[in-house]
Formats: sequence, C-alpha cells, structure tokens
Amino acid sequence: MIEEISIDFFGKDSDDFSCEIMIEGLPGVGQVGKLAAEHIMEELGAEKIAEIRSIFFPPQVLIDETGVAHLPKNEIYRYCDGERSIMFLIGDFQSGSAEGHYILADTYLDIAEKMGVKRIYTLGGYGVGHLIQDIRVLAAVNDEKLKDEVTGAGAVFAQDEPGGGIIGASGLLLGLGAKRGIEGICLMGETSGYIVDPKSSNSLLEVLSKMIGIDVDSTKLQERAVEMEVFLERLKSLDQSKTEEELSYIG
Amino acid sequence: MIEEISIDFFGKDSDDFSCEIMIEGLPGVGQVGKLAAEHIMEELGAEKIAEIRSIFFPPQVLIDETGVAHLPKNEIYRYCDGERSIMFLIGDFQSGSAEGHYILADTYLDIAEKMGVKRIYTLGGYGVGHLIQDIRVLAAVNDEKLKDEVTGAGAVFAQDEPGGGIIGASGLLLGLGAKRGIEGICLMGETSGYIVDPKSSNSLLEVLSKMIGIDVDSTKLQERAVEMEVFLERLKSLDQSKTEEELSYIG
Amino acid sequence: MIEEISIDFFGKDSDDFSCEIMIEGLPGVGQVGKLAAEHIMEELGAEKIAEIRSIFFPPQVLIDETGVAHLPKNEIYRYCDGERSIMFLIGDFQSGSAEGHYILADTYLDIAEKMGVKRIYTLGGYGVGHLIQDIRVLAAVNDEKLKDEVTGAGAVFAQDEPGGGIIGASGLLLGLGAKRGIEGICLMGETSGYIVDPKSSNSLLEVLSKMIGIDVDSTKLQERAVEMEVFLERLKSLDQSKTEEELSYIG
Amino acid sequence: MIEEISIDFFGKDSDDFSCEIMIEGLPGVGQVGKLAAEHIMEELGAEKIAEIRSIFFPPQVLIDETGVAHLPKNEIYRYCDGERSIMFLIGDFQSGSAEGHYILADTYLDIAEKMGVKRIYTLGGYGVGHLIQDIRVLAAVNDEKLKDEVTGAGAVFAQDEPGGGIIGASGLLLGLGAKRGIEGICLMGETSGYIVDPKSSNSLLEVLSKMIGIDVDSTKLQERAVEMEVFLERLKSLDQSKTEEELSYIG
Repeated sequence: MIEEISIDFFGKDSDDFSCEIMIEGLPGVGQVGKLAAEHIMEELGAEKIAEIRSIFFPPQVLIDETGVAHLPKNEIYRYCDGERSIMFLIGDFQSGSAEGHYILADTYLDIAEKMGVKRIYTLGGYGVGHLIQDIRVLAAVNDEKLKDEVTGAGAVFAQDEPGGGIIGASGLLLGLGAKRGIEGICLMGETSGYIVDPKSSNSLLEVLSKMIGIDVDSTKLQERAVEMEVFLERLKSLDQSKTEEELSYIG
Repeated sequence: MIEEISIDFFGKDSDDFSCEIMIEGLPGVGQVGKLAAEHIMEELGAEKIAEIRSIFFPPQVLIDETGVAHLPKNEIYRYCDGERSIMFLIGDFQSGSAEGHYILADTYLDIAEKMGVKRIYTLGGYGVGHLIQDIRVLAAVNDEKLKDEVTGAGAVFAQDEPGGGIIGASGLLLGLGAKRGIEGICLMGETSGYIVDPKSSNSLLEVLSKMIGIDVDSTKLQERAVEMEVFLERLKSLDQSKTEEELSYIG
Repeated sequence: MIEEISIDFFGKDSDDFSCEIMIEGLPGVGQVGKLAAEHIMEELGAEKIAEIRSIFFPPQVLIDETGVAHLPKNEIYRYCDGERSIMFLIGDFQSGSAEGHYILADTYLDIAEKMGVKRIYTLGGYGVGHLIQDIRVLAAVNDEKLKDEVTGAGAVFAQDEPGGGIIGASGLLLGLGAKRGIEGICLMGETSGYIVDPKSSNSLLEVLSKMIGIDVDSTKLQERAVEMEVFLERLKSLDQSKTEEELSYIG
Repeated sequence: MIEEISIDFFGKDSDDFSCEIMIEGLPGVGQVGKLAAEHIMEELGAEKIAEIRSIFFPPQVLIDETGVAHLPKNEIYRYCDGERSIMFLIGDFQSGSAEGHYILADTYLDIAEKMGVKRIYTLGGYGVGHLIQDIRVLAAVNDEKLKDEVTGAGAVFAQDEPGGGIIGASGLLLGLGAKRGIEGICLMGETSGYIVDPKSSNSLLEVLSKMIGIDVDSTKLQERAVEMEVFLERLKSLDQSKTEEELSYIG
C-alpha cells in the first residue's frame, strides 16, 4: 500500500544532518513566501537533501521544461557555512485536505526536530485586496518572548491582522511547533493578492536577513519586481478600463 | 503520527475531576450558544481544566491580541461551589467534516462520562431569517421525561421546529449521550441569523439559570445586547436602503 | 472510539431472524421508494428488529413530534406470515460520502446474507424533469434471468434509462449483491423530481405486489396521491405564472 | 469489511500473466485516450484477464443494454502474439477523491510490476478550448532518454504544455512508475474538450502504432470521426447562433 507521506533522503537519513534554523516557503497568497525562500536558498547555494511526496498533494504530475513528468513534491534544502545551518522547506503544493495539512505539518516537524531545529521562520503573503505601495511585513510568533526581536528587524504586529488567522503550513508549523518547544515566527508580506508579488517578497527578505544575520543579495528579486511593475503598467495602458480584479493571478 | 484528537488536562486526567452537569456552547448560528456559555462561565469564575485539539478543526492558527499564534482548540472549564459542579465545553470551531463531528462528540462524551456527568445542556441559536423582538427559547431533549422541567423554565417545544434537526455538537451530544444514559437538553435562542446576537443569548441564559438553579448576573450580556442594538440602529439610519440580508454576519 | 457503523438488534442478533426477501426503500428522488416501502411495511404490520447508525450519516439529530432528539438512523423491519418472510430497510438518510455508500451497502448485505435473503428489491424514483400522467415503472436487475419475471409484473426495461445509472443503496445493493449470489431487482417509478410523489409510489407498489405475491391495500397511498394533486392544482390556480421548476421539492 | 480495492483475476493471479507493455486509456478529456485504447484492444482481439472494483469509484451501478446493473469497474485486457505482450487498462471511471487516485494508481502499478511490465503508455486528451483541424499529439515522459523515440514517432514536446500538468491515472502512472523503474510515456491528443473526439484518438493511434510496432487498422475509429463531423455540421446548420460552448460534452 502506498504511504500517505514518503520522504527520500537519497540514501541518508534526517539524523545525518543538523540544522538550527528552518525556513518554510511553500505556495500561498501572491507566492510571496515561496519566492522569498527560494531566492535566499539560491543565493546561499543551499543543497537539496530530501524530497517529500504525499497522497495529500493533488493527484497529478507536473511537466518540467524538458518534457519530463514529476510527482508533486516538497523539498528540503540545507545551507551550512560553519556559523549557521539552515534547512529550507519549499515545494509545489500544500495539502488538498484539512487533515492532510495537519499530518504533513506534523511530519515536517518530525524532520526538523530530528535535525535539531530550534527556530522556524514561516514565510507568506497577506492579501489586502488592493495594489499597495508601502509594504508592511506583518508577523506572528508562537512565543511572546520573540516579539521584540521581530519588531527590531522591522516587522509589525498589527492588532486583528490577519483577522482570519494563518492558514496552512505557515500557521500549523507555529502552532504544532510550540508543542515541541520549537520557536516559530511567521512573516507575512502585504500583497494585493492579485499577482505574483516579488516586491512583497523583497520586503520579507529585508526583515528575514536581519533576523538570521545573513546579508542576502536581493538584486534578482528586485529585478523581478521591476519586471512585474513594467508588466502591470503595460497592462494598464493597454486597457484603462481593466479593473484590478481582472488582473487576478497574473504572473 | 499526529493524533486525530489530543486532549491535554495539564498533567492531570479526566478522572481527577467530577462534574454533574455539562454545558456546551461551541460556535454556531448567531454565536448564541457560545456567548451564553462563555458568559456564565466567566460570571461563575470557572477554571480551565483541559484543552482539546484536533485535525478535524480547520488547518490554521488563530492570532491573539498579543500577536501569538495558537492552534484552534476547544476548552473545558469547571465550576464547583460545593453544591454544584459544572463543566463547560467551549471553543474556536466545530469539525470541518461530517465524520469528525461524530468522532469529536463521542470524545466529549468519553470525557463527560469519566467525570460523572449526568446531564448535558447544549446551547445554540435557531436562525429564523428575520430580525425578531420576542425571542422564544426552543428546546429539544433526548428523553421525554425531561420536557416538563424544560417548559417549566420557560423554553418551548415547537412542533416542526427546528425542521432540519439540530446540526453539530449541540445535536450529537443529545443523540450519542442518550446511548450512554446521559440526559440531554438542547436550548436554542431564536435569532435572525444575520448578526452575533447577545440578546438571544440573554434569553437562553434566563432559561438555563432557572434550570441549573444558579442566578447568573446578566448585566454584561445585556450591555452587549444594547451595544448591538445601537450599532444596528446606526447602520439603518446611515443607509435606509440596506436590507437585512446585507447585514449578514455582522458582529 | 465510535464505530463507523453500529447495529442494534435489541439484544438479539441477525442470526436470530430469517428472511427470504429484502425490500429497500431509503430516501431518494421524489421519496418514491421510501413511501412505497414504508407503505407496504405498515400495511403488513412489519415489526422493527434493528436500528443502524453511522458516522456516514449527517452529523445531526432529528426532532420527533414530541420534541425528542434522535440520531439519524436506518431501520430494519421484518414481516413473516408463515409463507413469506420479508425484511425492510428504510431510514432517514443515505451516506454523505462516496466511500460511506459502499461501506453501508456492504453492511446491509452482511445482515441480509446472515438472515438468508435470496432476493433484494430496491425501490426508487426516476426523475424525468417534468410532471407526468402515465407513470412507467423502470427496472434493472443484477442477473439477466430475472428480466421475464420483472416485465411480467408490469415493469419495463428501457434502453439507456436511467442513463446515469442508479446512484446510492438502490444501485449498490444490486451490484454488490451479485458478488454474493443474491438476486437484485431495482424498481424505479417515474416522477417529475419536483415533488414528493405518492402517485409514483403507488405505481411501484402495483408491480412489487405482483412480484412478491402479496396483495397490499393501496388506499392510503392513493389518498396521499390525491391530496398532492389537490395541492398542486391549488398552487397552479393561485399563481399561473409559477413554473414547474419553482415547485421543486414541495411535499 | 469491504476492501478499498478488489481485484478479480477470475481464479488466476497476476503472476499467471506476463506483459512487457501496458497501455492505459481510462476516461478523461474528450474520451480521447479511452477511445484509442479500446480501439486498439478490440482490433487486436485482446482478452479480459481481470476486473477491478473500488470504493473510490462513484457509489452507483451502471445499466448495460440488457438492463443488467454492474458496479463501476476498471478492466485489464491482455494481448500476446508471440512477439509482443500488452496489457490494457480501461474502465468506467477514475477515482472520485484525490487520495483514491494515488491508491488506485499504486495498485495498477503493483499489478503491472508483477506481470513484468517494462513500459507504460498512458493515453489522454489535451483540451485546448476551441475546435481544431491540425491535431498535435503532445507527450510527456518519466525519463528523458525516452524523448527521441517519442518525437521520432510524431509526438511533440511543447514547452509549458500541458501547463497544469497531467491529472489522474495518466499522470500518476508516470510519476509513481518512475520510482519503480518502469518507463512511462504519456501521449495526449489535442481536442476541443467540448465533444467526444475520435479524430483526436486517431491521431493518438498513429503515434502509438509506430511506437509499439503494431499496425492497427484505424477504419472504425475514422468512421466514428466522420460521424462526429457530420453531427457537428448538422448542429451548426440547425442553429448558427449556437456557440461552441453550448456544444460542451456532446457525444
């Protein structure tokens, strides 16, 4: 019988790796967290150490640029520079069912705990429903003692935001992580929610860089943000009557 | 593997507590039951004895006013004054799936039975689809012998109401409780269904107070009801064209 | 842990009863099968021998006319006159999930097989989308050798009807029953699908009576059919502009 | 308890058969894959060796032309001419749930692996949203080394098509098959998505015939394609105002 979740460490085991910090950037609103996490990971040259597949992901394959089909997967990358060791959780999808969300998040924490992770940063977007210029980075923590550090890095705690809570892995890793004594910080870049938003990811990156003490080059993320701005301007000039709503999910 | 339901008695066990009566006030129509249960609990100064988490709750965290994220939970509080001992079941959510509803209600009854609960009051709202002045408290029981006591306290049994039955924990605790020999009484305050309705909760409180023989101060609930009335009046005067339908779910 | 399905034979067991024939009349289109099965059951004075509850039924209770709440249930009644022994499967709901449908139908067949059932009649309605005068009784069987007997009793096999197959217990009891060597005959009374349709049930009754060799008095069913006709006429005269679509699900 | 999936080899076992190639043609867009697989199977006179039933299929029965009801099933046929041995996977439905898709695909691979299958062809349609004349056959593989062979047979690898990946058995057999070292090639005939499309199936057939080295007579498939063209022309002439959208799912 197929396993609900299968984890492949390529012949090794989670015990063979140690990481102090985990950064989660799975798909979500505006792909803000995903873009930020993948950018840091690539700039640091993190190395893939594991792949995770699950029957809670959509029942399909994705086709890569060479025409090869792959099961949906989440991946774990690891960066270690002697001073710091970071694991990254990125991937194609989150769970398609409520129970699957809980079971997957619990599995991610099993892996993190075995690697010795002491703190988790979960990255996401906070959809505000309109295009914005000044992007705040909202935060939530799973332990009040973490707040000063978070505000010191430029993120804000906004009363009643996000009102509906934090859905999916970004939320559950904080909630379930607290039970295991793992510190959890969720950073959410404000975004319209209509477009893939590298600009918001860049704001997220600024806060996160300060917190993890690594100066990540943001050039590529800024270039993508500029491309998106140009694209949006062109769209507006082509058809002034297009409303923001019609720009949904462009990217 | 994560448990479907996890119950935390903070180092103790359900056996360490005894309660004769259980009062359930989980979220539902107009939050009528939730407001009433939480009001009594607070007025009596009941003490939290357990927290319940479940993969049947939505896959998210809720952010409290300090910016700290928490997994959705249901909670058990207990009040004991020598004469009476009451457990309260309140919380953030009900199950998101049909099977989860049954499994959770069964678990609540396991706890209640271990504590020696002889009678369960489940509190809810009965949505009538229009604003109402004279609020009836409708009732259902899981044993016909309970009816006189219920009508004596001012609740009514209305033929064919609620027509669709009672959905969720308020219903299942009666149905599944009967199998265990636990008396069950469901009290439902009439409400429009459009707003959070502390006025309906107050009507519920009047009936329940008589039944459990505790005179609960209703001042705070009445104040909230007045605030809501003022709020509704202001809404009406601002825009006379707003229909009741447009006021849905304000609160 | 609560059972997925719980069966209560009131202190007895399925082995304590024998039945040659099973008649299923669970809720469905126009309640045609349910009305017919319940009518026969009542006319014959069948006796309740078991109740079935399940977490696959909706998570709620139903309120009876005395104000007492009951879990949704399916029931088994039994009639025996020396010559014939019949079990009836009737109830409040069918499963709310696809898997639940299969698991419940399999359980019904476990019971039937233990009782020695050799043949199952499943009763239902076939929605045609418009009010009709001449009601055909469509049939399907799980063994071709049964067809002559069915057509001899007045039912018809119509090419490509019902096109979408037979959904729920009425279908699965035939399909899963065949695997166990139990003969299965599904009888479907044509009905608009807009109203509870005792007239269609009556047509079903005529065919079924011939097949089981019991002359069931149909007076009450015919009276209900007349009441419904009068009700429909009154509706039409009140508002000639009402379309049939607007009469959906009256009853 | 009913099994999630039951497989019936009619007294034999999967070990009793060997096949080098598997061709999957389950229902999907335009029934393109299903028509093609069933056509080849019939032309070659393949023989049915197994039936698969599952609680993940819809909870219903289908009625055949003789009025006999059957549980939904998938079927395995086998063709062997001394040189080549092929198993065909065809059937009524795919899974109704995401998890069921994974569990069924895993089961199909268990069977294929036991039979010694080295390569799987999955057949499907690729809906483009408008009627088309020149039908391309798009391809995806689960190993890059297979690409030359596929393009040599006339299929194309189109960057970013299908953009959303390949959903259901056609995709999962490739993704899960790769883990087992089974080669997987998905061929998708372009189709409007509005109609059952034997013309697209015929294009698929041309590519597949070359790949498996069997010259399959396509006369019947071409006749069906002509019938569909005539039917579409008649529809257009009857009502010029009918849009393509209104022709959805004709067939």
